[in-house]
Amino acid sequence: MNFPQHTWLLALLLATQTAAAQPVSLPGYDPAAAEAQRALEARFDTALKEADYRGWLKQWSSGPNHVGSPHNLANARDLEARLRSFGWETRIEQFEVLWPSPKTSRLELLGAKPYLARLKEPPLPGDSTSSQTEGVLPPYVIYGGDGDVTADLVYVNYGIAEDYEALARNGVDVRGKIVIARYGKGWRGLKPRLAQEHGAIGAIIYSDPRDDGYFQDLPYPDGPARNQWSVQRGSVANFALYPGDPLTPGVGATAGAKRLKLEQAGSVLKIPTLPISWGDAQPLLAALRGPVAPEDWRGALPITYRIGGDGSARVHLKVEADWGSQTLYNVIATLRGSDYPEQWVIRGNHRDGWVFGAADPLSGTTALLAEAKAIGELARQGQRPRRTLVYASWDGEEAGLLGSTEWAEQHADELRRKAVLYVNTDGNGRGFLNAGGSHALQRLINGVAADLRDPDSGVSVLERQRARARIDALAPAAKPAQKDVAKKLAAGGDVPLKALGSGSDYSPFLQHLGLATLDLGYGGQGGSSGVYHSLYDSYDYFARFVDPDFSYLPLLSQTVGRTVLRVANAPVLPQRFGDFADADAVAGYAQEIKQQADADRESARNQDELLAAGAYPAVSNPNRPLLAPVAKPAVPVIDFAPLDQAIARLQASAKRYDEALVAHGAGLSGDVRDKLNTSLQRIDQTLLVQTGLPGRPWYRNLIYAPGLATGYEVKTLPGIREALEDRRWDDLRRYIGQTATVLDAYREAIDRNTTLIEPG
Amino acid sequence: MNFPQHTWLLALLLATQTAAAQPVSLPGYDPAAAEAQRALEARFDTALKEADYRGWLKQWSSGPNHVGSPHNLANARDLEARLRSFGWETRIEQFEVLWPSPKTSRLELLGAKPYLARLKEPPLPGDSTSSQTEGVLPPYVIYGGDGDVTADLVYVNYGIAEDYEALARNGVDVRGKIVIARYGKGWRGLKPRLAQEHGAIGAIIYSDPRDDGYFQDLPYPDGPARNQWSVQRGSVANFALYPGDPLTPGVGATAGAKRLKLEQAGSVLKIPTLPISWGDAQPLLAALRGPVAPEDWRGALPITYRIGGDGSARVHLKVEADWGSQTLYNVIATLRGSDYPEQWVIRGNHRDGWVFGAADPLSGTTALLAEAKAIGELARQGQRPRRTLVYASWDGEEAGLLGSTEWAEQHADELRRKAVLYVNTDGNGRGFLNAGGSHALQRLINGVAADLRDPDSGVSVLERQRARARIDALAPAAKPAQKDVAKKLAAGGDVPLKALGSGSDYSPFLQHLGLATLDLGYGGQGGSSGVYHSLYDSYDYFARFVDPDFSYLPLLSQTVGRTVLRVANAPVLPQRFGDFADADAVAGYAQEIKQQADADRESARNQDELLAAGAYPAVSNPNRPLLAPVAKPAVPVIDFAPLDQAIARLQASAKRYDEALVAHGAGLSGDVRDKLNTSLQRIDQTLLVQTGLPGRPWYRNLIYAPGLATGYEVKTLPGIREALEDRRWDDLRRYIGQTATVLDAYREAIDRNTTLIEPG
Repeated sequence: MNFPQHTWLLALLLATQTAAAQPVSLPGYDPAAAEAQRALEARFDTALKEADYRGWLKQWSSGPNHVGSPHNLANARDLEARLRSFGWETRIEQFEVLWPSPKTSRLELLGAKPYLARLKEPPLPGDSTSSQTEGVLPPYVIYGGDGDVTADLVYVNYGIAEDYEALARNGVDVRGKIVIARYGKGWRGLKPRLAQEHGAIGAIIYSDPRDDGYFQDLPYPDGPARNQWSVQRGSVANFALYPGDPLTPGVGATAGAKRLKLEQAGSVLKIPTLPISWGDAQPLLAALRGPVAPEDWRGALPITYRIGGDGSARVHLKVEADWGSQTLYNVIATLRGSDYPEQWVIRGNHRDGWVFGAADPLSGTTALLAEAKAIGELARQGQRPRRTLVYASWDGEEAGLLGSTEWAEQHADELRRKAVLYVNTDGNGRGFLNAGGSHALQRLINGVAADLRDPDSGVSVLERQRARARIDALAPAAKPAQKDVAKKLAAGGDVPLKALGSGSDYSPFLQHLGLATLDLGYGGQGGSSGVYHSLYDSYDYFARFVDPDFSYLPLLSQTVGRTVLRVANAPVLPQRFGDFADADAVAGYAQEIKQQADADRESARNQDELLAAGAYPAVSNPNRPLLAPVAKPAVPVIDFAPLDQAIARLQASAKRYDEALVAHGAGLSGDVRDKLNTSLQRIDQTLLVQTGLPGRPWYRNLIYAPGLATGYEVKTLPGIREALEDRRWDDLRRYIGQTATVLDAYREAIDRNTTLIEPG
Repeated sequence: MNFPQHTWLLALLLATQTAAAQPVSLPGYDPAAAEAQRALEARFDTALKEADYRGWLKQWSSGPNHVGSPHNLANARDLEARLRSFGWETRIEQFEVLWPSPKTSRLELLGAKPYLARLKEPPLPGDSTSSQTEGVLPPYVIYGGDGDVTADLVYVNYGIAEDYEALARNGVDVRGKIVIARYGKGWRGLKPRLAQEHGAIGAIIYSDPRDDGYFQDLPYPDGPARNQWSVQRGSVANFALYPGDPLTPGVGATAGAKRLKLEQAGSVLKIPTLPISWGDAQPLLAALRGPVAPEDWRGALPITYRIGGDGSARVHLKVEADWGSQTLYNVIATLRGSDYPEQWVIRGNHRDGWVFGAADPLSGTTALLAEAKAIGELARQGQRPRRTLVYASWDGEEAGLLGSTEWAEQHADELRRKAVLYVNTDGNGRGFLNAGGSHALQRLINGVAADLRDPDSGVSVLERQRARARIDALAPAAKPAQKDVAKKLAAGGDVPLKALGSGSDYSPFLQHLGLATLDLGYGGQGGSSGVYHSLYDSYDYFARFVDPDFSYLPLLSQTVGRTVLRVANAPVLPQRFGDFADADAVAGYAQEIKQQADADRESARNQDELLAAGAYPAVSNPNRPLLAPVAKPAVPVIDFAPLDQAIARLQASAKRYDEALVAHGAGLSGDVRDKLNTSLQRIDQTLLVQTGLPGRPWYRNLIYAPGLATGYEVKTLPGIREALEDRRWDDLRRYIGQTATVLDAYREAIDRNTTLIEPG
């Protein structure tokens, strides 16, 4: 068990005082079924052993475990053997993917004060694995270009779109130059992609101490923050176009699959890109001249941040890879359901790390295995889940969700027929439950969170989330939306699920196949960001700084285990459609977009007036001269009526279904229930459009997508929202129509279900 | 002239195109009088010579010129001689004030890694005066306590009230400890005062590079920012209680004046306080342990900022002064008015610096002298102003507005009878006009700004202000109030005057005597903040980084000269009362306060709910534990009706007067005009209450005061606003009544004036 004895007693006491006072319903369950389910879950909990988590994490993170490494394969086999020993059917599914291995990395500042970058992460006292060198991937990014370039250096802040607007106003452009961007804000791969689109010939990305170093906390090994020589590795593949193997978009990368040529692979970048530490970045940044960087561009190095681009700092950058392939090993374990073997609840976590990968991803993998062990024991004792469980250990997530995407593409037809839900986790921290996914499952997750005790505070996971949201809404800088949520919470409303963008293995299930999807994890009390994707994401670090009690890994197992088992055993699948239709989700997103259109129209008009009045040259400061901004295209008045009407219909239908299920759900015949479940299982697929989003057909979900210009960050109602942001008026009109159409299809499916359950 | 030839031509061209298209009225003038006045002003301009500014600034800043220094007295005599040579009557008025001179300063970090602070500003190449040592005041603050203390060190961020709330939540208190605070946000003297009130026994104030050092720009001498060893001197006297000589509040510090004993002087602090450079601060801050400082506490030093207070860093601080007295020398020059010699327009700038004082204050003094020279020439040519001008060079401003306050107190009765306006300037920079003061003068200043060309941009000073405000209002972080102002500006409204708090010599005239007051200056394009109150505020610095063309000093003379002359010659004094009564001033302040009361009530209630629900322990992060905040007193529903009604009456009366003056102002008889002017001259004195503000009777103005808890920053409607902030409900009710009463008195005076000018 994960609770020390006294905390456990306190939790029981509090449960009597608070949770018991407000019994939380299990959606899709009648009271008797709910009681039985909760009893099962209590038995599940007793099978979770702290020693398992510690032991597995230590073993798996004892050697480098990136794609293709011997230790990764050994971990796959170890997992498979354990899963089999727990009573699961197992197999390892392989895919062959494009896999450039780093060959050469060189970076030097030329000129009067030359500097040759170290590009190395040294061993640290107290971090036992950091002295290993055999098989360790050097600092690099995967799916950047090869190149050997020498050019003037330009500092571009985070290297996101708005930074290029600021560069232009400072009269600096990056054509033919090498950019240096700091990690943070936008996703890693955006930085070289935008640099490439603006004409740069090379890109450097570094970790500024402002963002995850000494500015935040003491550097490792004295504290949890990133140290002087630590480097964040990662992928720069443009997965907002499509994730997975760059050569096989849309199909499984089996040995015989049809492949693109490398130069056709839209997700692979062209310019050489290298990630570095702040230790290596400081001499480069200190050499820059030219304009002083805008205030919000300045990091925590003891220098005056300047933009450069004036020939002050010439840099030589050389990056080369071996453009070969590697084999991925996905471990797939199945526990056949007793009643509905053709309905699958899928649960995954990746297994590959950049080096030792203790927090990311192996912590999450220990939770997955512990769940499988506990569920296996229950099955052995006769309490097999009613629906089939599929537990998956993905390979190659770090390079761009390779293992999960290839598997989802390969098994697409079967998944469309059988999948009920995909539940994802990744590296786990300590603190607050972060839950994102399909909004009709919001009540399900609130119910799970209400039934679990948070180890640090002793209150329920849900109460802790609620307290956080309400306290944050009191801060002077709180946004109106936060205050609205806090008001609803104060009145007893549910904690909203987050909408999912990308960055972990849920993406193909949610955004390509349209399955109901959840992503769960704990964090927010410090964690592994100071060693993220570095040599130092180790067992020693995890046990000192991430989760020293190993109390949040059992909690993650409890959270995911309940989620999986509640869905697997549910008499009626647990959607509540009002949570999808209403202001916390679809209706709220539409409202945001309409407000954004109004604000953009007003702001373009205001700026036009000021441009016409010559206001920008009038305020220009000769000490910090700025060019006038480029005029923004005018925003026409947009007809959102088709969308508004579809949402209004959806809200009415959702309310009718939710009320009908509460009134009549317990009394349904087995036949009706089966029909209902089959419909509920597939309903999220109505939200797809087969032609996908503009320029990225792989992404078919019209409710959730990662932003093409933001990377991980979600864009809700993406066809509409991104058309507005990019001022594509034809697309905007088209996607208002298409989005209304899929919402209507979803609503019609709801109506059919309501008809099924409403008496005669 | 201050314009290069081509800019001047451009300015003329633009004047034809824009300013001429919208002729700006001169308030208080009929068209013929306005034309004559503008012709006079054009002649005034021709007398401004760039060489004068350069020469005077170089001469006056060639030696240390603090209170009591030989060079300060030499500058006084030089000024007096020049003023007399320009045709002014002159005298030097002396006062005897408490003046502690620094004797001992020592600061050392004890323990394993001891460090002895340098406390010295070294000579710099290219800064010719920095090699002087003779007579230079060492880094120190005046009116702190003497002491020799050894104690544990605590970092308190800016050392303002909210920082002590954060300290408490971190479980750290400062009793018996020495605090180290960074310069910025609150006024300097608040930091040791709050430390003292919280039980600290010593205080250190340092300049973090985040606030005015390398984070902002290259350090001097490479650029304008503060360097590693530069120290900000200053006063820590509690001038929000009363400014001026600490021993003679309310009366002139003449030789025979009745004096308090030192221990009775409420404005003098008790604990030893020392200002230091970041070079000396870094070893101290790096030695601190204890909680990591909150994010907005962290500066730009390459360390992890921590709070300390756990015994990790013991410090020895010794500060001693010679508690003697010094003589102040105010230079007072008078030019007798041709028509109304008993009506005075007063204009002042201080003369004392901390060391060489080139930017602060001598740049402003050059503008003053150039105006006096130009006006003297006009008088010699027969164009003497109609009202008397009094030009004053104040001594001892830096220590706490000593010279101006003692003079205003000494001449209080005469000033109440004769003063029409006090116009202040101080050190001048480059960029935008900053204009603050009595709001009925808003139109006057807009008219002056409309008639002047900005040297950097070539557009009018007013257009530049308008462009700045409108562009800033487009920023995503712009506040609703900024957007409101921008909308009014877009519709042709005036640029609002700022309300005045304290920090320069206008305070006694505005807040003690209730005279109409203005404070004018240029800045906002970089300036002297990087050498503020240091050895390096030199001619060399000014000529390189503040105003290399010497173009904004003539512009300041043009601005103040026009202001002074337009008032001195005005047929009717130029108030427009709507600008005082309406939303940009009094009505807006009342609205702000009512909204604040509502927000405070809501926020106290929300926090109470969260405290009762145990939300704070529920979210506490064991890695960064925080105690729950202390419950805030509930905010009752407050009856603002007396204030609202007084303001409504005021607005109606103001409108009636403003319209009557436009309709009938030109046709008034000389007798009516004289009566009217006499009334207008004294009307601001109706805004005083003789008992003053709670706990600080020296401050009598119920519209404008410096914040008792903020220092320089203004509190408008201070009796009401501060009572709300401090939760003093009796005071709140009392000051709602008193403020309504003074607004009624002001309104009655307006009504009498309206009756005078409206045709019987």
